[in-house]
Amino acid sequence: MDSSKVKVVTCIAPVNIAVIKYWGKSDENLIIPINDSLSGTLSMDFMCAKTTIIASPELQENTFWLNGKEQSFNNKRLTNCLQEVKRLASKSLPHLNWKFSIKSENNFPTAAGLASSAAGYACLVSALAKLYEIEDNVSFIARMGSGSACRSMYGGWVLWCKGSSPDGRDSIAKQIAPASHWPEMRVLILVVNDERKKYSSTDAMKRSVETSELLKYRANQIVPKMTKACIEAIQKKDFEIFAEITMKESNSIHAICQDTYPPCVYLNDTSHTVANAVHAYNEFKSSNKVAYTYDAGPNAVLYLLDSSVDEFMSVINYLFPPQDTAEYYKGLPLSSNQLSQDLKMALNIPVQEPGCLKYIIHTKIGEGPKILTDPQQHLL
Amino acid sequence: MDSSKVKVVTCIAPVNIAVIKYWGKSDENLIIPINDSLSGTLSMDFMCAKTTIIASPELQENTFWLNGKEQSFNNKRLTNCLQEVKRLASKSLPHLNWKFSIKSENNFPTAAGLASSAAGYACLVSALAKLYEIEDNVSFIARMGSGSACRSMYGGWVLWCKGSSPDGRDSIAKQIAPASHWPEMRVLILVVNDERKKYSSTDAMKRSVETSELLKYRANQIVPKMTKACIEAIQKKDFEIFAEITMKESNSIHAICQDTYPPCVYLNDTSHTVANAVHAYNEFKSSNKVAYTYDAGPNAVLYLLDSSVDEFMSVINYLFPPQDTAEYYKGLPLSSNQLSQDLKMALNIPVQEPGCLKYIIHTKIGEGPKILTDPQQHLL
Repeated sequence: MDSSKVKVVTCIAPVNIAVIKYWGKSDENLIIPINDSLSGTLSMDFMCAKTTIIASPELQENTFWLNGKEQSFNNKRLTNCLQEVKRLASKSLPHLNWKFSIKSENNFPTAAGLASSAAGYACLVSALAKLYEIEDNVSFIARMGSGSACRSMYGGWVLWCKGSSPDGRDSIAKQIAPASHWPEMRVLILVVNDERKKYSSTDAMKRSVETSELLKYRANQIVPKMTKACIEAIQKKDFEIFAEITMKESNSIHAICQDTYPPCVYLNDTSHTVANAVHAYNEFKSSNKVAYTYDAGPNAVLYLLDSSVDEFMSVINYLFPPQDTAEYYKGLPLSSNQLSQDLKMALNIPVQEPGCLKYIIHTKIGEGPKILTDPQQHLL
Repeated sequence: MDSSKVKVVTCIAPVNIAVIKYWGKSDENLIIPINDSLSGTLSMDFMCAKTTIIASPELQENTFWLNGKEQSFNNKRLTNCLQEVKRLASKSLPHLNWKFSIKSENNFPTAAGLASSAAGYACLVSALAKLYEIEDNVSFIARMGSGSACRSMYGGWVLWCKGSSPDGRDSIAKQIAPASHWPEMRVLILVVNDERKKYSSTDAMKRSVETSELLKYRANQIVPKMTKACIEAIQKKDFEIFAEITMKESNSIHAICQDTYPPCVYLNDTSHTVANAVHAYNEFKSSNKVAYTYDAGPNAVLYLLDSSVDEFMSVINYLFPPQDTAEYYKGLPLSSNQLSQDLKMALNIPVQEPGCLKYIIHTKIGEGPKILTDPQQHLL
């Protein structure tokens, strides 16, 4: 290829973990949600998607490789995103109609149920926006790829407003506080071993909308006040309230899943044992020190302040004896303290079989998508 | 004791399994529920409580023995029941103020989470009503002992109306159809092994009322129409609709438990696997042949017609290999058929470890409490 006639963009984008959950669409094609949602963006130091796009007039056709496998372009979500990006681009761009090759990778296991599609679409849309020189908020385009991807378009704490426009143009994400606002916040991801059949969250959400009467009440009556209260708690850095809302919200969404017909049960016995441990620990400390939240899978994501990590990890290591410590701890350093006798008594939860947890990621709140300019970092 | 001065009454009373669930009280002391509920009464051939009361002027004090252990009378629920029964009794009864000795037993394990207190209080109140010659509907008195006990005061299909009187006098049970109405109905109780801490349903309900916003919506908006539809389905013997309502109701109540803060989780992985098997089987049969329902514990209670028992038991025996078949099957006879290859494929659920189920009771809908007149049947 003639390098003067090649455009190359590489981008990385983060994972986000909702504290007010997205569950249910009012428009399946455009991915417009029935309620607002709110998330923390996780540091890209340990978990991110990476996408490189090469555009050239010499390419004969568009190609898309995800984690080393070629993907079809016959994918409504992908084509919706491409169409919207091109619609926003200046018609005078010389490379607007060049074909391109997209290569995308996640640096964390896609199978672990860790919202890889959110990071992936945020990354793709960020790279396309850079390629086509678009400066606007393009979170609504990422949303068309994978709903919660719009929240991965910003760092820190991000609100996805459901909007009211039928075309979804105002169903966008905005940052409510940057990563630097609450620097003490840490996140522990406990990846749970689970051999059960996975249900797609798209199908499950659709079934919830169709069959759960409680869902309507949740979306209309409960989420609006929870969202408002959670934004305030984040702005004030009030962990006590933040934790309570986060846990109640997670419980509420899994209640809706249980109320769906047939039910979609994402939590298993291990997930519930983690939640019990969090409540027992908070009771022992006489205040909320840890908050759990669960997405469409059994993995527990724990929000906690850095001052609580060591002690709470002693709880987790006691209740869930690690099988293979070499690959078990990922991310920020974790020290392994002995659990105090008092705390052990207070927990009153039996030690679980080794192997209930696959591994643990220790991370923190981080920045939004980033364009990488060093040519060595390109994927192609 | 001088036998001319002794009154002896022996009574048996059944267990009931709700299809529209009771969850939440509007009055903790009087046990007035926040919604109507509806149940099937189970045959006393296999599960019942039995109570003998001996009253005599020669007894010095009241005593109460439950399953061979002496109980204190310092129990608000028990004293509420006694007080109400005496209030209704004729003041001219010569034995009204005699002391008495109560002995009560269940012929099924109390620890199995099989609503033993409902049968127990229904039995006690029936025996006291007989002793004091009361002919009225005394289900409201049984209710003061243990809410759902009022539904065990009748056979067949029983509605507990929450009522509207602050004193609870109209919070009573009534039969909507006798046991003979739907003679094909069978019940399978799958008793699940579970080593977790048990939560008292009284405490959990209270916490739900205090913390679950979804509960209010359920009680006020969902239960009234479900109850009406379920009564109709029973009256028409429409199993398709009956099963759907039963399963949705069970899911709804466990959704509320998950929405409670902290959550009270009664279902475990085995409970969910049973529910999955029921949905997979119904899908295979292209209609609802089996309905699950779960109370405040992991045991699955399945309603099904006699024509489905053999085939569905082949599903259960395949998914949950029995450990010790000698003590494993209780109640009505169960034949053990081979699971068809088609059905095995359709289930798509892995075979579970042996020991997930403790035992299985096969029973049917039966009659209400009964006074036993043969002196050999007395417990004392």
